[in-house]
Amino acid sequence: MIKPAILGHGTVGSGVYEVFEMNAEKIARAAGTPVEVKYVLDLRDFSHLPYGNKFVSDFSVIENDPEVTVVCEVMGGVRAAYDFTKRCLEAGKSVCTSNKELVATKGEELLRIAEEHNVNYLFEASVGGGIPIIRPMIQCLAANEFNQICGILNGTTNYILTQMIKNGVAFEDALRQAQVNGYAEADPTADIEGHDACRKICILSDLAFGDQFDPEEVCCEGITAITLKDVACADRLGCVIKLIGRAVRCEDGTAYAFVAPHLVRKESPLASVEDVFNAIMIEGNATGDVMFYGKGAGKLATASAVCADMLDCIEHQGRRRRIQWGDGSRKLLRPLGSFASPWYVRFHGPRASLEAALPCESVREVDGELVASVSALSADELNARLSGLSGSVLSSMRIL
Amino acid sequence: MIKPAILGHGTVGSGVYEVFEMNAEKIARAAGTPVEVKYVLDLRDFSHLPYGNKFVSDFSVIENDPEVTVVCEVMGGVRAAYDFTKRCLEAGKSVCTSNKELVATKGEELLRIAEEHNVNYLFEASVGGGIPIIRPMIQCLAANEFNQICGILNGTTNYILTQMIKNGVAFEDALRQAQVNGYAEADPTADIEGHDACRKICILSDLAFGDQFDPEEVCCEGITAITLKDVACADRLGCVIKLIGRAVRCEDGTAYAFVAPHLVRKESPLASVEDVFNAIMIEGNATGDVMFYGKGAGKLATASAVCADMLDCIEHQGRRRRIQWGDGSRKLLRPLGSFASPWYVRFHGPRASLEAALPCESVREVDGELVASVSALSADELNARLSGLSGSVLSSMRIL
Repeated sequence: MIKPAILGHGTVGSGVYEVFEMNAEKIARAAGTPVEVKYVLDLRDFSHLPYGNKFVSDFSVIENDPEVTVVCEVMGGVRAAYDFTKRCLEAGKSVCTSNKELVATKGEELLRIAEEHNVNYLFEASVGGGIPIIRPMIQCLAANEFNQICGILNGTTNYILTQMIKNGVAFEDALRQAQVNGYAEADPTADIEGHDACRKICILSDLAFGDQFDPEEVCCEGITAITLKDVACADRLGCVIKLIGRAVRCEDGTAYAFVAPHLVRKESPLASVEDVFNAIMIEGNATGDVMFYGKGAGKLATASAVCADMLDCIEHQGRRRRIQWGDGSRKLLRPLGSFASPWYVRFHGPRASLEAALPCESVREVDGELVASVSALSADELNARLSGLSGSVLSSMRIL
Repeated sequence: MIKPAILGHGTVGSGVYEVFEMNAEKIARAAGTPVEVKYVLDLRDFSHLPYGNKFVSDFSVIENDPEVTVVCEVMGGVRAAYDFTKRCLEAGKSVCTSNKELVATKGEELLRIAEEHNVNYLFEASVGGGIPIIRPMIQCLAANEFNQICGILNGTTNYILTQMIKNGVAFEDALRQAQVNGYAEADPTADIEGHDACRKICILSDLAFGDQFDPEEVCCEGITAITLKDVACADRLGCVIKLIGRAVRCEDGTAYAFVAPHLVRKESPLASVEDVFNAIMIEGNATGDVMFYGKGAGKLATASAVCADMLDCIEHQGRRRRIQWGDGSRKLLRPLGSFASPWYVRFHGPRASLEAALPCESVREVDGELVASVSALSADELNARLSGLSGSVLSSMRIL
């Protein structure tokens, strides 16, 4: 009998408890032994629940109980979560988490502490919610070098963009709708400014390239500036607008990593990923493109990924999974300005000057404005060429 | 240093060698030690190759070499492959394979022998080529009961159907085109009659439901009867025709498993899977729908999946991964006749008799024929109702 503890009884935490109850038989089969949650840590009063007697408010009860060999941290944030995770690992307990902020900022250190104590720190649920992505990447694709990762990594922004594209709803209204439906929080900054997607592309880059990518240093552009006009112009170019987290490997082992809205051609499998769904496309040098698709959030989906990690820890009790990356000292992240990409440019001004400044593949007039599809240029080069233009650049985005 | 052997130097076998060469550094990092192929078993003469000196024609050289702890079987077929796999496992060597026919028919026995000798038998590449599917299913989704699996599991038939749908090419011509492009073999029976997809849905069912599903007992219908007329009528109903391998779990733990062409609604992510691509949609009771997409075949893609399994064996030297299923004695497979589904029926005869016989949701006339979309009925019920009709049923397919 395995007796795990759950740190935090929010959406995911209560979901973890529910999955252990709902699928107890299947989980016992997979673990080779029954699994019964022993403690749930939360400061709030949950004594009315059928399992109210399992709640503790003092973390040290869990820390000091040798019967607890695996802990799931689903508190979120980095302060207490960081402290408790470290103390669990130091006490010889494996930890599984959905906390992308903690993994993105402290992953390297926590994996190192886990290694020192011969336990595991796993975080399948930190990217893509219930979509299997981390384990497939580091195990199933282990014999590949990763050329590129492209993902729709945030369900809230994808819901908003889908509303804009499908129903012609303006950004502010689509955001309000997302809040009403519970897809966006009261303070939506982390989603709409791309910070959430940024943490996720950092974690995927850490794994793909073997060194820590710092979310503070990764360029991150959200979707707040996108207008229905951009959506309509993208459509004219045979594209839809998606917020893409992207990591691209260079010949010398360095890499670009960033989050930005992109025009995605409608033929791409990423274009048809709608609403709160997520999808991650990975290009391996042997396997080619593979894509993983599903709901990137949600109580039971995310919880089931955390539970799967706990089963992995149980299977590997006293043994380490081979997950580790460098401390960032290799400085693999390239400045984004030099990354070459085709561009979409919406412009108000004389056509001749636009065509003289940029290698345009097509320029069309839409409602008195010019919409250009531009061949590959670095952002630095694009901006340099645009700066001297007489006229105004209304918007520009990379084309995937 | 790990020194594996490769059994068979066909497309996948030579690909495995190539991946080990091409990604040697990455593989050494993942394995924690360099990996260098020691033997390649093949009866043909490959002495002209740079690694020609590694070829052996006598299997016992590999069998008796204690330095070889992991073997990849990529010979195909069930006779020699079965014999050699068994002998490797009995000699304490782990075996990785892409051989779906062997896994589908002898998987339970070989997993049992592997267990008795504390080694592993892994087969990620047997379904979906380079697409991660088996490990995600049994590990990442381990905390789920599987409600349904729906997959486009065969690239050849998907290529043919895509040609029929996109370019209006008739079946026979599309098949010839697939042969010219190397997507179909000279004898295409195993692909176009659905046998290849059938083996794969059996393997997925074995894993999902924990008991052996016999390909001989699983109903299997190919795509040879599909006409351009069906393709056009499907389009009218907002659908495309796809060959789907399907497994559906019932309340009591029994399951349906079968392969048949289906009408797939265009909104479904499966509808946009084209050409030789494969995709597998899995519905877990906690995680909801997740989909895995990529090239389901191809030399390096399939090879990289075999190599990843070999890395897993190296990591778990002397330890068993928890993969096992029953010997089929639980008789989980339900007779397909009782499986209820909505139907597409193309009919020539009086409209009144069709509407009297079937619960039609819509009936439209197309070129003097009737095309009906029918609410859920079992196949037995559908056939019983159709048998008494005056007129002729031109085709019928399930709607997904």
